[in-house]
Amino acid sequence: MDRKKIRWNGWGWNEAHDELSGRAELWAWLAHETGMPTLLATPPRELKDIKLPSSRLRGEERSRFVAMLGAEQVRDDDYERAFHALGRSYHDVLRMRAGDLTTAPDLVLYARNQADVLAVLAYASEQGIAVVPFGGGTSVVGGVTASHGTFGAVVTLDLSKMDRVLDVDRISMTAEIEAGIYGPALEKALQAQGLTLGHYPQSFEFSTLGGWIAHAGAGQQSGRYGRSSDWLVSVTLATPRGVLITDNFPASAAGPRLKDIVIGSEGEFGIVSQARVRIHEAPAKKIYTGFLFKDFQSGTEALRTAIREEIPTAMLRLSDADETRIYRTMADIGKPQGLKAALTERFLAMRGLDRAPAAVIAGFEGDADEVADGLASFKKIAKRLGALSVGESMGKRWYEGRFHGPYMRDPMMDRGVGVDTLETSTSWSNIPKLHRAVVTALHTAMVETAPRPGARGIVMGHISHTYPDGASLYFTYIFPRQLDAEVAQWRAIKKAASDAIAANGGTISHHHGVGEDHLPWIAQEKGELGIAVLRAIKHTLDPKGILNPGKLIPG
Amino acid sequence: MDRKKIRWNGWGWNEAHDELSGRAELWAWLAHETGMPTLLATPPRELKDIKLPSSRLRGEERSRFVAMLGAEQVRDDDYERAFHALGRSYHDVLRMRAGDLTTAPDLVLYARNQADVLAVLAYASEQGIAVVPFGGGTSVVGGVTASHGTFGAVVTLDLSKMDRVLDVDRISMTAEIEAGIYGPALEKALQAQGLTLGHYPQSFEFSTLGGWIAHAGAGQQSGRYGRSSDWLVSVTLATPRGVLITDNFPASAAGPRLKDIVIGSEGEFGIVSQARVRIHEAPAKKIYTGFLFKDFQSGTEALRTAIREEIPTAMLRLSDADETRIYRTMADIGKPQGLKAALTERFLAMRGLDRAPAAVIAGFEGDADEVADGLASFKKIAKRLGALSVGESMGKRWYEGRFHGPYMRDPMMDRGVGVDTLETSTSWSNIPKLHRAVVTALHTAMVETAPRPGARGIVMGHISHTYPDGASLYFTYIFPRQLDAEVAQWRAIKKAASDAIAANGGTISHHHGVGEDHLPWIAQEKGELGIAVLRAIKHTLDPKGILNPGKLIPG
Repeated sequence: MDRKKIRWNGWGWNEAHDELSGRAELWAWLAHETGMPTLLATPPRELKDIKLPSSRLRGEERSRFVAMLGAEQVRDDDYERAFHALGRSYHDVLRMRAGDLTTAPDLVLYARNQADVLAVLAYASEQGIAVVPFGGGTSVVGGVTASHGTFGAVVTLDLSKMDRVLDVDRISMTAEIEAGIYGPALEKALQAQGLTLGHYPQSFEFSTLGGWIAHAGAGQQSGRYGRSSDWLVSVTLATPRGVLITDNFPASAAGPRLKDIVIGSEGEFGIVSQARVRIHEAPAKKIYTGFLFKDFQSGTEALRTAIREEIPTAMLRLSDADETRIYRTMADIGKPQGLKAALTERFLAMRGLDRAPAAVIAGFEGDADEVADGLASFKKIAKRLGALSVGESMGKRWYEGRFHGPYMRDPMMDRGVGVDTLETSTSWSNIPKLHRAVVTALHTAMVETAPRPGARGIVMGHISHTYPDGASLYFTYIFPRQLDAEVAQWRAIKKAASDAIAANGGTISHHHGVGEDHLPWIAQEKGELGIAVLRAIKHTLDPKGILNPGKLIPG
Repeated sequence: MDRKKIRWNGWGWNEAHDELSGRAELWAWLAHETGMPTLLATPPRELKDIKLPSSRLRGEERSRFVAMLGAEQVRDDDYERAFHALGRSYHDVLRMRAGDLTTAPDLVLYARNQADVLAVLAYASEQGIAVVPFGGGTSVVGGVTASHGTFGAVVTLDLSKMDRVLDVDRISMTAEIEAGIYGPALEKALQAQGLTLGHYPQSFEFSTLGGWIAHAGAGQQSGRYGRSSDWLVSVTLATPRGVLITDNFPASAAGPRLKDIVIGSEGEFGIVSQARVRIHEAPAKKIYTGFLFKDFQSGTEALRTAIREEIPTAMLRLSDADETRIYRTMADIGKPQGLKAALTERFLAMRGLDRAPAAVIAGFEGDADEVADGLASFKKIAKRLGALSVGESMGKRWYEGRFHGPYMRDPMMDRGVGVDTLETSTSWSNIPKLHRAVVTALHTAMVETAPRPGARGIVMGHISHTYPDGASLYFTYIFPRQLDAEVAQWRAIKKAASDAIAANGGTISHHHGVGEDHLPWIAQEKGELGIAVLRAIKHTLDPKGILNPGKLIPG
């Protein structure tokens, strides 16, 4: 992966096509919707104009790393340090665009193998140098910020050269893979053999296996392929005290399973160097199709019923009324609206689907029969609830754009607009309350922190993942930035939403992870004794506390 | 539950019908099969003839417990102390029958609620008294032995009065239940509302919810209802440092999930006082039916294919050739064998099913369509592999006797015969090797420890639980006892099998747990760092180490 081709201060490929910038009507609509007279030009600072802090490492320490890894793996040029300074959260991007690279690591190290990782950890632990593990660096919660914690210096240890598929067991359908492999390379290697892991988070193009495990992630199709806690068979964790290799049994009653303490450990217990994962036959068929439900409640009922009836879905995604309306507006605005659109409106009105409609994208993957059965079963539920089957064009549009969401942030950032996402999960019985609470908290906070009277934000919500006992809730919020207090504004909105989540029975994260952004809420979620347990585990594996300080365990 | 109705030194109800004792032909066959000229009468000692050790607790300590819990909850009569001295492993039963009650607790305490549990733990921790949590006491691995560890005294804390269903959430399909509830009471309460947990281990009649969680158990139908690690939503753990309540989210990326460290913690981290569990609609239909495969390998292939093709089964159980043969012999011996039996033999020979046939019991539960689909799909696989569908009478026989296995131990024990079981799991690709290794180790050890030249044991193996990447292996072994060295003989056989498991890629337990019997193998399985992690967790929650010493963490 040539990181020079990736934006250091935003999302995705440098050369990615910007679909939004030319659409004047869209921007005019967004200004109106957020109560702004007009949007401003707010370009980012360029890297060449930013002065990075000097490295705090001593020459002798640098030399030791060079001796250990080879000069090629030891980098301190501005691009490498800037690329590894932060992840890709809204908070990160705000700072990078403003030229705040105070968290640039003192050195960027590339590991070629597990021995490299162990050598770096042993030396750093001995010298008291903080180590931040880095896969693709796409954390949206401050999971890879190169914080030095209480230490004098910090190095980032980049795993992306550890990218081999080491073994495929076709009988047991598992594969042993190095943790630094990017999503596309992993799927390419498996699919060449007709196999798949099926883990496709929105960050898929730029995130790695190790990151998926360390932050307890879930792909968009976790309904079929599971989240990392489901597909992880065993993991090798490199720590300052040596290697912890967890068992690789399909199931065991021999005490607590140690892989479970690695999942979600955020690089604070050790560095995931490789893992054995459950794999599948690559699906012969995929169908993604759309439905319109009369409201969010009715759509929620459909999703809950589908999982109760064990209908084999790869994904069920339900947008709330605002998200449904805004997606439609953003897709259509500025495009000619003819007779067909008017007729559609009349038809929807007749069906009672014009007031607060809620869109569902239902995805099915597998062999042809299984996909057909799943779709037919879901259609029955939808029909029973008075929903309209909109068809595959809507599903196809979603599928084709499934990694595209994050690309929309940069053009918005260029125009004084902020956009962030957050997510949670709760039981089915609590979904309505939690949804309302977060929407209200976000709206209120965005008005309170608006740059001018009358300005306001947009909140779009959806259910992205379903479970027998509950579901996730994912929120995107868009707001005009208070340009003289961007970070404080973000912090206030984030705090309001997070407090609402914590007070209303939600987890602080369903699949983004903890990181610096969620650290303030983790003690409430885990409880005092829970945090004491996590601290004891960390102290055992990382006695000096050098690993990724401040990402999981409150100080 | 009136414990006076349960055998204190064996399995099950005192009044249970003994199906075996009258069958002379069976015993003659067993003597022959184990190379013994005849079987001996070896009755157990009666409780009234056994002298229990004096209590090591001081009167003041006893008084404090009485003040805390009420006199009714504080017991030190011989029956209570004997009942709580040990679990129900072969090793336990050997000792109880011989009158060895050296592990009788100094006091038996009954908790009425969580406050009681916390009060006992706080006081015991302060005074340095070991506490053994006790649900139904059915551990077959030495999980509830009232060992005092390094302390001067030990109390057993019995949870069986904490048996209420506290809440049922029908929307989210979860229920909050006190941990001391017995299996039948739990299912009765749920089924009265048309619901089920579906956790039916062989010990179901006499085991409790808290035990299922603490030893990471799996029911016979875990294919449909999951093992405890699947159905546990959240757990309340009472510890000497207070209460740890884990989150109850359907999924979360907010750090490692603390419920995962409670599952399998064997009472060493705290006492499970209540739990929220995933529940299901009680199945409208159940079908259990039998198949005969040409050999174990072919049956294994069928099970693996069924899980690969995601066929909805509640249970797939495959007996190896010896188990198939011996079950058949034990069922038929001494009963008239007519023309039908002879014809059956000829038919099986024609189909190639007479050499080393392997029986499968396939169970399907759910609504009628689902059950029919599952059965039809499995039949297709069986047919493709040349298996014979034997029909529901075989399945029904298994289902009706599904809790009966352990009842067969006592009549054998009365005749100088030992019988024990052990189990493991491994990847599909390693199943043949592990199966062979354990069978060989057991046979060799039983010959080496036989009471006379030419004596030998029987080994029956089966796959009891299947997973996408592997399966469990369960072994029953029967042998003539070396009456002057019964415990040493058991230990030698157990060691041989356990060493074979550890050396051949199996876990030391798939669903029985760790306990004193498996403790010697846990360090090898978890690794040095892994044990250090477990020890750190224990030290955090139970700083004095009073909880169930010697059941999970090696000294």
